[in-house]
Amino acid sequence: MEAISIVGFTAAVFTTISFLPQVIKIIKTKHTKDLSLGMYAFFVTGVLLWFVYGFLIYDIPVIIANGITLLLSTVILIYIIKYSNHQPAE
Amino acid sequence: MEAISIVGFTAAVFTTISFLPQVIKIIKTKHTKDLSLGMYAFFVTGVLLWFVYGFLIYDIPVIIANGITLLLSTVILIYIIKYSNHQPAE
Repeated sequence: MEAISIVGFTAAVFTTISFLPQVIKIIKTKHTKDLSLGMYAFFVTGVLLWFVYGFLIYDIPVIIANGITLLLSTVILIYIIKYSNHQPAE
Repeated sequence: MEAISIVGFTAAVFTTISFLPQVIKIIKTKHTKDLSLGMYAFFVTGVLLWFVYGFLIYDIPVIIANGITLLLSTVILIYIIKYSNHQPAE
């Protein structure tokens, strides 16, 4: 793998796995009050479009990276909606 | 612009602007307790690498989209670190 590809591959690994610590934190604390519903609504929509785009251009790395990110960010979005009724707004 | 490019462009716009509502929420509430430091540490590193990758392959959309995301996610990371001393862990 050439140097440029290694930078791109490492970038994809970092941005893809980054959502895992947030999922773990939510499962542990059951708190999502400080997380923005708007952010995850936009983000999940965008990543879903990236996932579709991956199939349209048939690029396996784009499909896999965005597939994992879509899964993790959707879990966060569901938890934000689930816990929104139990935490008073500030 | 062909249909496939429109999907990719729309995806980029959504994932890029998604971090703005989170920045606004933090500025309003001054609370970051529920946000994962690990997530933003990984994410900012990954987006920085995407930004560098954009220059290496000299792709203007990759540079612009990741430049904006890098700015917004770095602001969030700084706020998480700034407010971490003022909010007791649970």
